[in-house]
Amino acid sequence: MKRDQLTRRGFLAASAGLGACGSAGAAAQTAPKAPLPSWNEGAAKTSIRTFIDRVTAKDGPNLVPVPERIAVFDNDGTLWAERPVYFQLQFAIDRLRELSPQHPEWSERQPFKAVLENDHAALAAAGEHGLLEIVAATHAGMTTGEFSSIVADWLATARHPRFDRLYTQMVYQPMLELLGYLRDNGFTTFIVSGGGVEFMRVFADNAYGIPPQQVVGSCGVVKLETGADGKPVLVKQPGVEFIDDGPGKPVGIDRFIGRQPVLAFGNSDGDLQMLQYTAAGNGLRFMGLVHHTDAEREWAYDRNSPVGKLDKALDEADRRGWTVVDMKRDWRTIFPRAGATGSRALQ
Amino acid sequence: MKRDQLTRRGFLAASAGLGACGSAGAAAQTAPKAPLPSWNEGAAKTSIRTFIDRVTAKDGPNLVPVPERIAVFDNDGTLWAERPVYFQLQFAIDRLRELSPQHPEWSERQPFKAVLENDHAALAAAGEHGLLEIVAATHAGMTTGEFSSIVADWLATARHPRFDRLYTQMVYQPMLELLGYLRDNGFTTFIVSGGGVEFMRVFADNAYGIPPQQVVGSCGVVKLETGADGKPVLVKQPGVEFIDDGPGKPVGIDRFIGRQPVLAFGNSDGDLQMLQYTAAGNGLRFMGLVHHTDAEREWAYDRNSPVGKLDKALDEADRRGWTVVDMKRDWRTIFPRAGATGSRALQ
Repeated sequence: MKRDQLTRRGFLAASAGLGACGSAGAAAQTAPKAPLPSWNEGAAKTSIRTFIDRVTAKDGPNLVPVPERIAVFDNDGTLWAERPVYFQLQFAIDRLRELSPQHPEWSERQPFKAVLENDHAALAAAGEHGLLEIVAATHAGMTTGEFSSIVADWLATARHPRFDRLYTQMVYQPMLELLGYLRDNGFTTFIVSGGGVEFMRVFADNAYGIPPQQVVGSCGVVKLETGADGKPVLVKQPGVEFIDDGPGKPVGIDRFIGRQPVLAFGNSDGDLQMLQYTAAGNGLRFMGLVHHTDAEREWAYDRNSPVGKLDKALDEADRRGWTVVDMKRDWRTIFPRAGATGSRALQ
Repeated sequence: MKRDQLTRRGFLAASAGLGACGSAGAAAQTAPKAPLPSWNEGAAKTSIRTFIDRVTAKDGPNLVPVPERIAVFDNDGTLWAERPVYFQLQFAIDRLRELSPQHPEWSERQPFKAVLENDHAALAAAGEHGLLEIVAATHAGMTTGEFSSIVADWLATARHPRFDRLYTQMVYQPMLELLGYLRDNGFTTFIVSGGGVEFMRVFADNAYGIPPQQVVGSCGVVKLETGADGKPVLVKQPGVEFIDDGPGKPVGIDRFIGRQPVLAFGNSDGDLQMLQYTAAGNGLRFMGLVHHTDAEREWAYDRNSPVGKLDKALDEADRRGWTVVDMKRDWRTIFPRAGATGSRALQ
């Protein structure tokens, strides 16, 4: 377990070096005719609808004022898939391969050699330090705008090895509907993820209707410099500034949002503290977990998974009556229909 | 100049230890009948109105889509006054005095002795380290919620020595109107200040209509711990995490907002990089400075001021045609009428 955590933490530390926002695209909104159409009837859907009804009922005892309707979502494994590896790690691997012709020395040097030869054992052996080297080589030494463009290009072309879809089509249709349903009910929706904030901002607006300022994530060091044209630019440095995972999530929520959330959704033990912190607020609160139970349509994993390990949080959810979404049972569809992304997937 | 900067930086470093949000209160909004009534007719008012008209004109060449209408404002000296000392420093001084009966040793130990004896020379001699000690004693060792309550109590009772007003009544009426005018035109308004983020969040919502998640500032280290009731709490530590001043402002904007602003307003050289970064964006941009020229109704200071020094930024504004607001000439009123705060001051 310690090794898993180290690896997870290592990649987060590594991935915290990212690039500026860039996507435009307004938040996706739909009229709430029949909310959550991709959710099967059952306890999970009922618990969501009941919660929303209660906190929005005027003159009701659980009314939450609109400005306080803060909803936070983990990203990897909660809003989009995270297998076989975190998509941001896949981006880094693809980027390394793309850059390798300019770095002949990589063919003899770890961890680059492992990436180029697809040697998972050697990559694992390179540990956290190796991941930091991969991230430094792929997420730093460029302006935030340049990084953003590189990510956008990758997202526009790279395809998931199993599903042969763009990664932005690996988002969960039921969660898109939940985000829209919350916004229709006055909630402000935030991502609070261990992923790099600037990586996520490239697609969060179009994919989820979540604008850059509502994306909280791990951060690399960024430095103000003067560009070739004399204008100020922000240049991504190799160092890591903040890891938004585990106990870092409540800290990130405090720093970036400044309000205790009313609703939180995650899928792994890295979300446990965010869920506990949400539960500790006064008044009615909603804590949810996506449980990956569908090996056929997506993946099935929990307690012993190296990626997205869900163990302690599952026990606590059971003990405290949090909502556990059984992907196989509760979701009618997993991914948006082919070709539909972002706001189109909501219609 | 170096000493001034050191002192400014010292206080920012010091003040970066703050406490959670707490205020509710919805954003203040008014119908834009005759916008900016407290602004005299003249170049400054015209430049603002012309800019807004252009970036909102449908089918116009300068149209900025609503999600990209990001406006950033410095706080001290731009949205509220900053004399004779930064109000957050006054809070720290008052807090030290309040705590002093429990710390008899302070009467013999600097910098505490200097504060208790109102000895400005000794306080200045204590330098950055002294300020950090003051902040550690007043901004750390408590939960974010406790800190927030302490600040709220101070704001509800402490009065400005010259004007005998609550500090939240030391906000600038013309800037309140500008914030409302921008929001009426689809802008999202942010504070980007060297002040502590959690200090500002206590009053920013009620005073300015700016909710906690739109307040960017310096941050102290915060740690997740378990409270006496077993619930998670965030405890403020003495260390400083991020200084949102000078070159830190574009970094803070990138990290918290993720979009290059369209409009920026400041009042000192600490805002220069934020203004330059805003100016470097593509398309029509607005850069503004509040120039303190009214010793009678407020204060007059610029190039040689230890607080709010405005020198390089003033030269650059002149050279590049940025809008410089002459407080004496351009503002019909400075502060809201007595008793009116926040949204009431906008009506």
